[in-house]
Amino acid sequence: MDSRRTKMVGELIRRNSLAALLFWRPDELVMMLGYFPLWGVSVLLYPADGEPVLFVPALEPEDILPKGITVKKYPWGALDGNDPWEVLYSVAKEELFRRGLADGVVSFTRSIGGSAPCRMSAEQPPLPADLVLRLERVCAGGWKDTGAELSQLYDEKTPTDIVALEKTHKIAALAVEVFYREVGRGHTEAMLGALIESAVQETNGRGDVGFAKAWPMLQSGLNAADAGRFNRSTGKLIVPGDLVVLEMGVCVDGYWADITRTAVVGQATHSQQHMYEAVAGAQEAAFRLLRPGAAMREVDNAARSFIADAGFGSCFPHALGHQTGFRYHDPGDVLSPYSTGILREGMVVTVEPGVYSKELGSGLRIEDNVLITPGGYRILSAYPRDLKGGNQVYGK
Amino acid sequence: MDSRRTKMVGELIRRNSLAALLFWRPDELVMMLGYFPLWGVSVLLYPADGEPVLFVPALEPEDILPKGITVKKYPWGALDGNDPWEVLYSVAKEELFRRGLADGVVSFTRSIGGSAPCRMSAEQPPLPADLVLRLERVCAGGWKDTGAELSQLYDEKTPTDIVALEKTHKIAALAVEVFYREVGRGHTEAMLGALIESAVQETNGRGDVGFAKAWPMLQSGLNAADAGRFNRSTGKLIVPGDLVVLEMGVCVDGYWADITRTAVVGQATHSQQHMYEAVAGAQEAAFRLLRPGAAMREVDNAARSFIADAGFGSCFPHALGHQTGFRYHDPGDVLSPYSTGILREGMVVTVEPGVYSKELGSGLRIEDNVLITPGGYRILSAYPRDLKGGNQVYGK
Repeated sequence: MDSRRTKMVGELIRRNSLAALLFWRPDELVMMLGYFPLWGVSVLLYPADGEPVLFVPALEPEDILPKGITVKKYPWGALDGNDPWEVLYSVAKEELFRRGLADGVVSFTRSIGGSAPCRMSAEQPPLPADLVLRLERVCAGGWKDTGAELSQLYDEKTPTDIVALEKTHKIAALAVEVFYREVGRGHTEAMLGALIESAVQETNGRGDVGFAKAWPMLQSGLNAADAGRFNRSTGKLIVPGDLVVLEMGVCVDGYWADITRTAVVGQATHSQQHMYEAVAGAQEAAFRLLRPGAAMREVDNAARSFIADAGFGSCFPHALGHQTGFRYHDPGDVLSPYSTGILREGMVVTVEPGVYSKELGSGLRIEDNVLITPGGYRILSAYPRDLKGGNQVYGK
Repeated sequence: MDSRRTKMVGELIRRNSLAALLFWRPDELVMMLGYFPLWGVSVLLYPADGEPVLFVPALEPEDILPKGITVKKYPWGALDGNDPWEVLYSVAKEELFRRGLADGVVSFTRSIGGSAPCRMSAEQPPLPADLVLRLERVCAGGWKDTGAELSQLYDEKTPTDIVALEKTHKIAALAVEVFYREVGRGHTEAMLGALIESAVQETNGRGDVGFAKAWPMLQSGLNAADAGRFNRSTGKLIVPGDLVVLEMGVCVDGYWADITRTAVVGQATHSQQHMYEAVAGAQEAAFRLLRPGAAMREVDNAARSFIADAGFGSCFPHALGHQTGFRYHDPGDVLSPYSTGILREGMVVTVEPGVYSKELGSGLRIEDNVLITPGGYRILSAYPRDLKGGNQVYGK
């Protein structure tokens, strides 16, 4: 296990006098172990004392199991007529009793849904609500809500995480390259999305990538005026004169990037250039404030004011950014006018100003993922970000 | 709304003396309304009397909203500092009181996770556990568990559903075509998966397809011996002599197909041909029993016995099939030795016998999706299913 992560979890356990923490969501297992489950439900039992143990479905492939931790298999998916949830409950309970933890207090995330899917499919298994209630009652001390602190674990990306996120962003760069290359070639929005997604998938066949998937969404012309409300691709043909917004989540081995680029087909009009300068300038204004200790609302305000000063004050209806990395959208404080959060070293935040206008008939957003460093920040998605996909890189 | 579905839900409400049902999972909304949410959380309030109402995020695109039902928007995703869950709770509560339903009993699915994701991303929003508990207490009559009956709603695909499922299976056919065409061209497993997935995505740019995504997983040679335990693609090169198993979920506008094909690269050996005949024969033996009223365990037994008689008795470690359509894996009874379920008209089940052997160094599965009709069955995935992708179609 990552030593920095181990330290953080140990502190959480001590602060709350817990006997054990349980982790079961795929994004939690990526965060704790760099392990992105293939299917079913894996559960990490992390005790106050002694070694943690990971329960995995007996059918999980051996080579994706994390190293340096005790792994115990339980018969999820076996053809024996047993309910795997009952088996999981029993083995977790037995482990708590065996370790003398049953008099203490346990904690785990009990929110419903909210989890990244396993890599194998688009579904999650239906963890029964009753199982949660029963797990809460296993220990004499009951269950303690440490939700806010568990969420804070997501806030810090360790050096191990950053290496993994760099790989994700390297693959996302291929998608951006395809976007700029193909945007002017007469595709529909949906077809351009398919080409971009293909480029990401094709890395599955190369090098050390075990799983790579992208969720690109394209909006062009008037459709882009909605890009501040929602993102999706339609059958609309992309034509000269269009601004085209690419919004995209990319998952590589459980680690996520969240990228937006906007391109113009043909030459930008004066109005389009003005929108671009407002958004690019807003992003740069936000970048300049990124450092440990900065107030998130101040960063949002820097971008929001820049956009307002450029005359687009009513055209930026969403928050400036959120945390990302273990999921498409990590939990935790966001960059918004209502945020009370403070930037800390190791955070990865999106910086995604945009302007959208039915009157102007279009929309434009630029989104990058930025790591907060001791001295300021580092852009993980340092790809071209202008309207033509040129080579300049802002903010470095 | 689909009149057949309306009738089923009405009966469920009357049997349980409910004031209202709430539906919030994307797969439930597909089943009830043919509506596959783009993002956030939409909630269908279905009262015992009066018109149902659908609450959707204010930012949801108008053109994907279902017709013929009252739609109310609530400010999910608005930049106003409010918690959207609180807003959702309030509007749902207000509606129950306004309609005089607050003295009655409500029911809804409260299992954790287990939902298909929204089409926009790989995530689901983190529905708070507390919200569920609070919703359960809104009405004086409390919450009633109708889980088994709600699950039965998935059992019957209506004529409307079948039209949608036919579209999904038409697109899945393209994926199967690419599989047979490309399997012998020297790709890695992962690259072949990427090519197959691309073929499905590219339909996004054509016709009346709003959303199409595939999750293909390829296992070749010795890797295929694991295909009865798990499915995934690796960087292994597919070489002459390999059996290659394609396992695939395909989602088109919220409706799913679940398909497996096995191909051989080059000429099948005697041993491979023997495995194929055991599996294909087992599938045909199962097909022959498919009709309303048939016991699911008998269908499983027909396939299982055929495989045992062919000498592979220890090589078929999973159930013969499950229901599918609103999800990759629908809830409800399965075709297994432990099943107590009975086939009914309108069910869609997978029939997926397989044999897997480390000793033989390979594995082989064929999986089709079959609609139970008044007179027997109809195969929705009536594509070639032999080792070379030939033209014969079994079971029609």
